[in-house]
This record gives sequence, C-alpha cells and structure tokens, in this order.
Amino acid sequence: MVQDKSTNVTWHDGLVSCDERASLLEQKGVTLWFTGLSGSGKSTIAVALERRLMDQGKLSYRLDGDNIRLGINKNLGFSADDRTENIRRIGEISKLFCDVGILTLASFISPYRDDRDHVRQLHEASDFSFVEIFVDCALSSAEERDPKGLYKKARAGEIKNFTGIDDPYEVPNNPEIHLRSDVLSLDQEVDAIMAFLQHNKFVV
Amino acid sequence: MVQDKSTNVTWHDGLVSCDERASLLEQKGVTLWFTGLSGSGKSTIAVALERRLMDQGKLSYRLDGDNIRLGINKNLGFSADDRTENIRRIGEISKLFCDVGILTLASFISPYRDDRDHVRQLHEASDFSFVEIFVDCALSSAEERDPKGLYKKARAGEIKNFTGIDDPYEVPNNPEIHLRSDVLSLDQEVDAIMAFLQHNKFVV
Repeated sequence: MVQDKSTNVTWHDGLVSCDERASLLEQKGVTLWFTGLSGSGKSTIAVALERRLMDQGKLSYRLDGDNIRLGINKNLGFSADDRTENIRRIGEISKLFCDVGILTLASFISPYRDDRDHVRQLHEASDFSFVEIFVDCALSSAEERDPKGLYKKARAGEIKNFTGIDDPYEVPNNPEIHLRSDVLSLDQEVDAIMAFLQHNKFVV
Repeated sequence: MVQDKSTNVTWHDGLVSCDERASLLEQKGVTLWFTGLSGSGKSTIAVALERRLMDQGKLSYRLDGDNIRLGINKNLGFSADDRTENIRRIGEISKLFCDVGILTLASFISPYRDDRDHVRQLHEASDFSFVEIFVDCALSSAEERDPKGLYKKARAGEIKNFTGIDDPYEVPNNPEIHLRSDVLSLDQEVDAIMAFLQHNKFVV
C-alpha cells in the first residue's frame, strides 16, 4: 500500500459533470488496459485502434509503457516496488482521462495481477470503466519477434528483471477481452475491440 | 533534478497526431496554470471558466491541488521536496492533457518559481503551450476569506509549512495573465481569460 501523506485535503466540486463532457464528445470514457509480454503486440494494436477510432470521429489517447516512462515516471526503475508505483500512477492518470471522457488506451506489460487488479479497483471505486485486454502470445513467439531486441539482451544478461525471462508474467484470470495475437490478424483484433466498445455503448 | 532510472525506453510513434485531435475538437490544447496563495480564488476562477467553456462547446478539465492529492499524488506530503515532485508530476500530466487537445486548468498554489518554470520548460520543450495565470491577492485578504479554515490552523501551529505563513510564496515575474482577485469580479476574471484564449486561437 502507498502511504497516504496528504492531509487537509478536500474535494473541490465543479460545475461541469463527467456526463456533460461525455455528451459533448458523444462517447463515454473508458480505460482499455492492454497487458501482455513485451513483443506480444500491445502497442501495435493500440496504435491501430487509435487510428480506427479517429476515423470515426472518436477521441482516444494512448498511454504507453515507453512514453509514460520518459515523462511522469522517469524517476522509476524496474524493481518490483517501482513497477508497482509505475502502474499505480498510470492507473490514476487513466482515471483522470476517463473522467474527461477519453477512450484511454493504456498499453503496459503490467506483469503482476495484483497491480492490474488495483487499477481496476481504483476505477470501479469511482464508477469508471476498466476493460482488461489480454494480448496473449507465447513467450517463444514474442521472443522470436523481439521488435526492440530486448529479449536478446535479457538472455545475454544485459537487462535484469525482464518479464518472461527472469521476472514473472501473471496471466489475467478473467479479462474482458482475450486476444490471441499469434493467431489473429491486426484487423481482427481491432474489430473485436470495436465490437466490444459499440456493444457496451462507449461509442455509438 | 529527478533521477532518471528508466532505461531501454524508446518513443512509440502513433498514427494520430496532436493536430488531428485538435481539429476533431476544434480547439488547441493548452495548460492554464493558476498560481497564488491558498484562498486567493484560483479554484473558484477555474470552476467558473470550466463552466463558461462548456457552454461554448469546448472541452476543458480541471486539475486541482485537492483532487490530484487524493489520487496520483497521495503518497506526497508538504515538504519542499514533496512539493517539487507534486508539481513535476502535475506538469507531466498537464503535458499529456495538452497533447490530447484539452484546455487544461491546473490550479495549484505552486509557491516556488523554479517549480513553475520547470513545468513551463517541460511544455515548451515539447511545443506545448503553458500560460501562467497569477491570481494575485494580498495575504491579509486571503487570510480573511480563509474558505477552508487553514490559515487559522496554520496560525495556531496546527499546520506546518503553510504557504504565506511559515513557507514562502514566490510571485511570478512575468505571468501571461495577472488577475487582481481582490479587485476584479469573477466574471471579469473569466472574461479576461476567455479573451486571451480567443486572441491566441486556443478556441475559436
């Protein structure tokens, strides 16, 4: 648990509601949380989905393990504690984005089940929607793709605490969407997520 | 300086640009940074501005010292170091909001000039717009208002490191907008900001 040091703090009510922003945008804020091994295709799917949504006039934004770590989380490393704080902060940012009304595409390895469940709880406690998307790919396939050459470095011992090699990946027990990225095409993956968003009225 | 612990991190390019989001929203992302003493009227102005913008079909969002501290920054206190990290994280979040295309209303005492300048630099280094709004109010007036009873507690020694009492407030040297909140009406303050936003084409 994060220690709560903030005191003398109260919520300042506004005059514009989350529902009003959703009406303006004609969509409903949601966090789509892509989890899976490095190289499983999370960011590739998120990039393609972002494009598809814009083509339909919908506002989405991609939070990415890479670009977040160059900004707000640049003072965090890859120890278990830092990974947990990394995911906690991203979860809080995702909540803010949901409140704005954005279709938020959060793409992070996020290997620990407890961390993902914590982000889910953060959302659900504030009545925001959290959708876990398991981008499922065999380690051997991810390692074969190795788009950033990171598996090679991890196998050579040049990177420590690498998920799938010397750090665990805990698979989701009950994700809202399960994509077998070594079986489906990119279009099929995006179609599946769009169908979910339409069926659940996040977009119309 | 924040220690940079992130390694093996590269930016993942997308297929949707900031400009495209701005076109969709018919507005341009900007951070409006309200700084001033506790009780100077920062949040009151931000709340009224948010309402005015929504009435014109513009998407804005309020980041507030209070509600941010209940979420992403709840593991930070009020020491000088923690205040600096508090403002740094908010600056990074504001940048993300700008990138989405949101008119971001960041309302924080942010008493240290270096911290505000750091947030400005963060924005300008990425070609995002940072507008410093000094909500200027005599300490005596703020203390008389004391909407949350915090000055009373600080004077009684029940709160330590309280800006204006036993912690300094460094006034902005060259804010884009300077509002004398003990002289202007709330409508006049909102009018002044709206005129700035229109003149600089953040809204049309």
